[in-house]
Amino acid sequence: MTDTRDADPRILPHIVGRWSPRAFDGSEIALADLQTLFDAARWAPSAFNAQPWRFLYARRNDAHWESFLKLLVPANAGWAQNASALIFILSDTLMEKPGSEPAPSWSHSFDAGAAWAMLALQARALGYDSHGMTGVDFDAARLALQVPERFRIEAAVAVGRRGDPASLPEPLQEREKPSGRHPVKSFAFAGPFPAEDNGE
Amino acid sequence: MTDTRDADPRILPHIVGRWSPRAFDGSEIALADLQTLFDAARWAPSAFNAQPWRFLYARRNDAHWESFLKLLVPANAGWAQNASALIFILSDTLMEKPGSEPAPSWSHSFDAGAAWAMLALQARALGYDSHGMTGVDFDAARLALQVPERFRIEAAVAVGRRGDPASLPEPLQEREKPSGRHPVKSFAFAGPFPAEDNGE
Repeated sequence: MTDTRDADPRILPHIVGRWSPRAFDGSEIALADLQTLFDAARWAPSAFNAQPWRFLYARRNDAHWESFLKLLVPANAGWAQNASALIFILSDTLMEKPGSEPAPSWSHSFDAGAAWAMLALQARALGYDSHGMTGVDFDAARLALQVPERFRIEAAVAVGRRGDPASLPEPLQEREKPSGRHPVKSFAFAGPFPAEDNGE
Repeated sequence: MTDTRDADPRILPHIVGRWSPRAFDGSEIALADLQTLFDAARWAPSAFNAQPWRFLYARRNDAHWESFLKLLVPANAGWAQNASALIFILSDTLMEKPGSEPAPSWSHSFDAGAAWAMLALQARALGYDSHGMTGVDFDAARLALQVPERFRIEAAVAVGRRGDPASLPEPLQEREKPSGRHPVKSFAFAGPFPAEDNGE
């Protein structure tokens, strides 16, 4: 794991500049900006262009905000309450094909993850930051958000403008910086899967 | 579904300019370029920064190329044989946490999808195109690539430089253009899941 962002200088600035802060400034987000994030997300690739992603959102102080916030685990709700929008990303586990019954999709989660990446990069382009979370009460979210069984809840995302790290509890202040990554040689291999990689 | 790319002008050019061609020019790719794609992929967000993605690759005419190509369904191998690299994207279905046994990951596919999106955008930045595929013989791929049970094979990707559409069979020539997307209002909703969306 590298602690600094020792990236190739050719890497797109929004890719290497993106990270997941917790300190947000409590400002509101214009609906037009949020729609632009979804507009970016939709250009993600997906198997058979099925576009299996769905986004449920609440904007700060709107009628849904408090109920969305309650679906995060308390450790996340603590800082996410200062974000400008909360988004739940879902995926359609079934794929429609013309002339046949809906069948299980192999790549609904993978495709939704690609859409999420587009959203995260577009947020940077508009001056926002985003923070994805699986620290969610998924059962409560399914109930509260009336998510049909057919759809999987993939993650929640907080979007907002960067705030003052001093607003965070002390243990989180220390983590308020870009995270490192494993070196390329540890996860990209020429040819078959290497015997020495056991996931650890 | 829109047939044209009627995107907000604020959307990042590489996001809206990316699409999935099938006509590649049969050129080779420098290993350094391929490594830069993986370098971009690693900056994707992932739950607990677990980075569950793995990439197995073959470069055109290397020792693995023919065996990788054979793992695609014939309809894909037909055009992908002119790509410059073939990549299988895997994800680690288990997550390591300090001091406890590996546990199932909720978001391994979703996180790998985010890494794939970064790779696809970075390819554009270097003058390459990419085409993701689930038209793969997954059972054969697991065997040939010696993928441990713990890892899921998410998709294959062809990377290369754009070729002449006339090199494709006629039915594919017609499809050699950017695909459309559903409008934002059909997949992004304020508040709970809308009763009228049944995935169709």
